Amino acid sequence: MRAIQITEFGGPEVLQTAEVPDPVPGPRDLLIEVERAGVNYADTHRVEDTYLSSTSLPLVPGSEVAGRTADGRRVVAMVDSGGYAERAVADPNTAFDIPDGVDDATALALIIQGATAWVLLRRNVHLAQGESVVVHAGAGGVGSLAVQLAKAFGAGRVIATAGSPDKRETALELGADVAVDSRSEDMTAALVDANEGRRVDAVLDMTGGRVTDESLRALAPFGRLAFYGMASREAPKPVQLPNLMRHSATVSGMWLPHAFMLPGDVVGTAMAEMFELVRSERLRAVLGGEYPLEQARRAHEDLRSRATRGKLALDVTR
Amino acid sequence: MRAIQITEFGGPEVLQTAEVPDPVPGPRDLLIEVERAGVNYADTHRVEDTYLSSTSLPLVPGSEVAGRTADGRRVVAMVDSGGYAERAVADPNTAFDIPDGVDDATALALIIQGATAWVLLRRNVHLAQGESVVVHAGAGGVGSLAVQLAKAFGAGRVIATAGSPDKRETALELGADVAVDSRSEDMTAALVDANEGRRVDAVLDMTGGRVTDESLRALAPFGRLAFYGMASREAPKPVQLPNLMRHSATVSGMWLPHAFMLPGDVVGTAMAEMFELVRSERLRAVLGGEYPLEQARRAHEDLRSRATRGKLALDVTR
Repeated sequence: MRAIQITEFGGPEVLQTAEVPDPVPGPRDLLIEVERAGVNYADTHRVEDTYLSSTSLPLVPGSEVAGRTADGRRVVAMVDSGGYAERAVADPNTAFDIPDGVDDATALALIIQGATAWVLLRRNVHLAQGESVVVHAGAGGVGSLAVQLAKAFGAGRVIATAGSPDKRETALELGADVAVDSRSEDMTAALVDANEGRRVDAVLDMTGGRVTDESLRALAPFGRLAFYGMASREAPKPVQLPNLMRHSATVSGMWLPHAFMLPGDVVGTAMAEMFELVRSERLRAVLGGEYPLEQARRAHEDLRSRATRGKLALDVTR
Repeated sequence: MRAIQITEFGGPEVLQTAEVPDPVPGPRDLLIEVERAGVNYADTHRVEDTYLSSTSLPLVPGSEVAGRTADGRRVVAMVDSGGYAERAVADPNTAFDIPDGVDDATALALIIQGATAWVLLRRNVHLAQGESVVVHAGAGGVGSLAVQLAKAFGAGRVIATAGSPDKRETALELGADVAVDSRSEDMTAALVDANEGRRVDAVLDMTGGRVTDESLRALAPFGRLAFYGMASREAPKPVQLPNLMRHSATVSGMWLPHAFMLPGDVVGTAMAEMFELVRSERLRAVLGGEYPLEQARRAHEDLRSRATRGKLALDVTR
């Protein structure tokens, strides 16, 4: 089958089209004829071997696919790797039927990015009715969904950050109450200002570095910051527990694969709730464009340049 | 009036009986004729000037009192300082009527230590039905109440730690499923072992140092550690946010005065719920003994030696 494969770690240039053997499903696995594969920040980390889990070569990257099973079901699935290919194998626990009225690209936006936003809001920061929440990268893959979910969950004030005027415009269109320049010189002051002079109740952060440090200082007592990525490639300052005590602050990390292990089918609940919000037009995925499979390299370049907005997908049928 | 006053910072020896002017209530304040004053770990930090907020001299220590208002109401109140005295002034927001069937010493155990345990379980670690929770110092002021509240809230397994066999026996009598030696050489292994080989969902920690470091490593994915004191006087290692992400872990700090600022009368709700649990005999305060006001020094010495068990109070009428 046709796939994108890497045989050495590196930047987008290592993504090469190749003819590779079909994957072999285990007895419980689903074999999926892939139509579209989602592109994620995490994929760029996998490709350069800076991901949270270690990666062995050769690798077909890609952790989310939409397509059809042998019995004709339309599904979206999270896979460990192997998504940038004509066929992929998935654990049935991480595959969900796509309901009518939801398109492939939207389903791809929900399976990792939507589930991430949902879990962050519900299980990490436990957003309560009326609270203020900062969504960094509010026009990005997770951010654009987090802004809408936060509103649907009753947030009092949603503060999005983004690096360009048109991304900020997108965040506002999605329902953010205010949009802040993510390049603000003093992020603490910018967030407090955007919250009408009050410190904030919750922050969803995938930036790292100074943005994280300064966002932590913007938390109100009992405020929570959830850290789920490090797009800047810069670690935030270490956190001192006595400081957390002094401010009654919470910092939380989240890596989505763990959410699939939680009791009570948390991700299944998240998917069902989000599919329903899409069908009732209270949630929409921002679609950042489709690239033919062969142009995976360009997709990574565009994503890393931080010039894209919303979900990127590879069209595997082209 | 008679009070315990300090005019220099230091150990228990600086606590001296003195004749001081009566406190002057502001227009909204309650003046309380104190009958019993609670003794807390935080008081020992105040006295040596290692508390979370700065302290000026001279100081009448003591942050919780039980007694009567001018109009005859029996109340328990949290005060900023001034508790070790015949009269104290309280903000009405931090004063609660003591219902019939609840004695002064129990009410004193609930106002700070009970409220701390309640807020930690409900607002910091969000304990869910069936989860495992570690309560360090499970026979202590906060711990003895946290063990019982965790059971009342539906914990699946409550793991208490304590430094002596009889303290561990107390924790078990209060409902802990298992009691672990707090001096275990490898706390990570001891906690996982006590949880039947599984990592734990939540930890309430007021120890610091190695115990905190090793408890963090015992957390299951989506596990939460709440840090609310540092009885060992040793800071835990700083926490790296990328590590929290890698383990989907949460660390949380809590300082009770912040809980009084939360919307929705959180502490009032906590007190009402705990008074009801006491009246229905599902919650009891472990009472560690009463000292005459003059013996405040001995009370601090006993508390710091970590030989006491449960709530210490000063009897101001003696």
